[in-house]
Amino acid sequence: MSYFRPEIDTLDAYTPGEQPPFDADVVKLNTNENPYPPSPRVMEALHEIQGDQLRLYPQPYADEFRASAAAVLGVEPGSVLVGNGSDDILTMLFRSVTGPSRPVAYPSPTYVLYGTLAQIQGAPVVEIPFDEDYTLPVGELAKANAALTLIASPNSPSGTRPSNDQLAELASRLDGVLAIDEAYVEFADTNALELVRRFENVLILRTLSKSHALAGLRLGYAVAATAMVAGLAKVKDSYNVDAIAAHVGSAAVQDQKYTAELVARVRRSRGRLAAALTALGFRVWPSEANFLLVRPPDGRAHDVYEGLKQRGILVRYFNRPALEDKLRITVGTDAQNDRLIEAITQLAR
Amino acid sequence: MSYFRPEIDTLDAYTPGEQPPFDADVVKLNTNENPYPPSPRVMEALHEIQGDQLRLYPQPYADEFRASAAAVLGVEPGSVLVGNGSDDILTMLFRSVTGPSRPVAYPSPTYVLYGTLAQIQGAPVVEIPFDEDYTLPVGELAKANAALTLIASPNSPSGTRPSNDQLAELASRLDGVLAIDEAYVEFADTNALELVRRFENVLILRTLSKSHALAGLRLGYAVAATAMVAGLAKVKDSYNVDAIAAHVGSAAVQDQKYTAELVARVRRSRGRLAAALTALGFRVWPSEANFLLVRPPDGRAHDVYEGLKQRGILVRYFNRPALEDKLRITVGTDAQNDRLIEAITQLAR
Repeated sequence: MSYFRPEIDTLDAYTPGEQPPFDADVVKLNTNENPYPPSPRVMEALHEIQGDQLRLYPQPYADEFRASAAAVLGVEPGSVLVGNGSDDILTMLFRSVTGPSRPVAYPSPTYVLYGTLAQIQGAPVVEIPFDEDYTLPVGELAKANAALTLIASPNSPSGTRPSNDQLAELASRLDGVLAIDEAYVEFADTNALELVRRFENVLILRTLSKSHALAGLRLGYAVAATAMVAGLAKVKDSYNVDAIAAHVGSAAVQDQKYTAELVARVRRSRGRLAAALTALGFRVWPSEANFLLVRPPDGRAHDVYEGLKQRGILVRYFNRPALEDKLRITVGTDAQNDRLIEAITQLAR
Repeated sequence: MSYFRPEIDTLDAYTPGEQPPFDADVVKLNTNENPYPPSPRVMEALHEIQGDQLRLYPQPYADEFRASAAAVLGVEPGSVLVGNGSDDILTMLFRSVTGPSRPVAYPSPTYVLYGTLAQIQGAPVVEIPFDEDYTLPVGELAKANAALTLIASPNSPSGTRPSNDQLAELASRLDGVLAIDEAYVEFADTNALELVRRFENVLILRTLSKSHALAGLRLGYAVAATAMVAGLAKVKDSYNVDAIAAHVGSAAVQDQKYTAELVARVRRSRGRLAAALTALGFRVWPSEANFLLVRPPDGRAHDVYEGLKQRGILVRYFNRPALEDKLRITVGTDAQNDRLIEAITQLAR
């Protein structure tokens, strides 16, 4: 006899990418972290923390960060909901919206956690396969008309991004919630924030993990109509965001100049890395994120993954349909990317 | 039409106690925080944090803290599961164990969040009323034989604690999980950790919020058999504990001398405050926690709550059955407690 629900007993838990100790000597291109350190303002804010801020419970809605993020985005604080990473927001979405009679839909392949969270809720899933070019299947998703539809934009692992016109068409045809997961959007040419003003069923997810180099801090947020925020907040942990993250994260979003510089550097390196891999015969999907989906010339992606690992370079291999012959490679510094290219060249000999 | 599940639409969200800004001039005796600052080692550990620890994802199981907590408790690291506060552990418990056909049981009144989490899961609740002395209703809870039985020990808001014999008897009679919520146990005379070794269905919850003066950090943990930990971990957010909390919390649990001093001071003040309130005609329940459940001489608890608030003193009033005539008062410093006693004396005139 099990102590757990049947859905949990049969669940394969989500497996995050390998996390070696932070001071290990590896080139870590497997979990889409930023290769540059966070803003100096972040470290200053960290050192400002007082004992009393740790002694007392934090603000339930992380007011300091909420106000800063709202100001930067030009929205009302009431339309921002802060989470312990954007995974926390996803969990709130699934718990408040989905269930056995309330299905979930998304194109596939995408962020694996969507399927895991659906299974935990016992919610049926409609997975619509992407074509080879990762075109958003608007018609099929609209036809599924799920209680919750999720679009990662840019998508992981492809790095591709649908247009706002496609997203708007989808939003207008759905009766349920459309969650647009913009974890990587700072690296893209544009974003879908305007859709929140136009559609009451649209929710945008953001995170400081990638663009702000703060994956270790766990800070994400949603932007949506205030009624949607209020419903989600009902299932949030009372104090889901700690006092340090609220203060430090506020400093991070305010330092827009620093973020813009980081993003520009990563985008330049992305172009350079894509060109180098293309020259080696890899297929490289056009990416608006801080990673590239690539296919080695012979499609033996797992061999490349293993060979790189032996040389101290971690990239991401997904043993899943449509991805067995591909790798997802985070854009590192130019020096890291050069080391990757050198190792791939050696492997090909 | 609502975007949310019916359970969410009808849910009254859990309302935490008032959180004025951390530098506000109030005597805050409403949410059971520690009146003393965290260990100096905690502040040192905070200042050791490097940019790279924030840039990278944290260890999924908060290994550094897990190892420290396990060593202090004398258990295996694999029997410790770390959460973003113990509320995060409670959420994992409810999501992995309970559902519409998997009921929840607990004595009442207790921590209000248990009922909220059950409602979110659509799980039926069996609430067994405590008697006036808050005796654990072992027989009735055993008879309910729920998928998840929760005992806050010490209980909030009463401060009372059942014996380990009572808890062991309950554990042995249940087919489901027995969660013993020891959020306040460092202020008690003993704890129930030994039951984890004896019963595979027992899970102990702990937090650094109260005894370690770290409510703002959000760090709690469970101790249970490794099979139970593995099941719970399936529903945890991949990176639920941030890198700062794992490092700082590790320093906090290691400084056992400091914690023991804080706890001894709070226990002394608790005795002194209980005596002063008793002298003013209040009924004071015997407390093993860092708060007191009290009944004013005339039972007009809400008037006392309001009168104190006007004088800048926050205590907790619960507008709920069996509690309308009582207040829960956190034990503050002796100076804060004196100010409380003075204000109550004034109100009584």
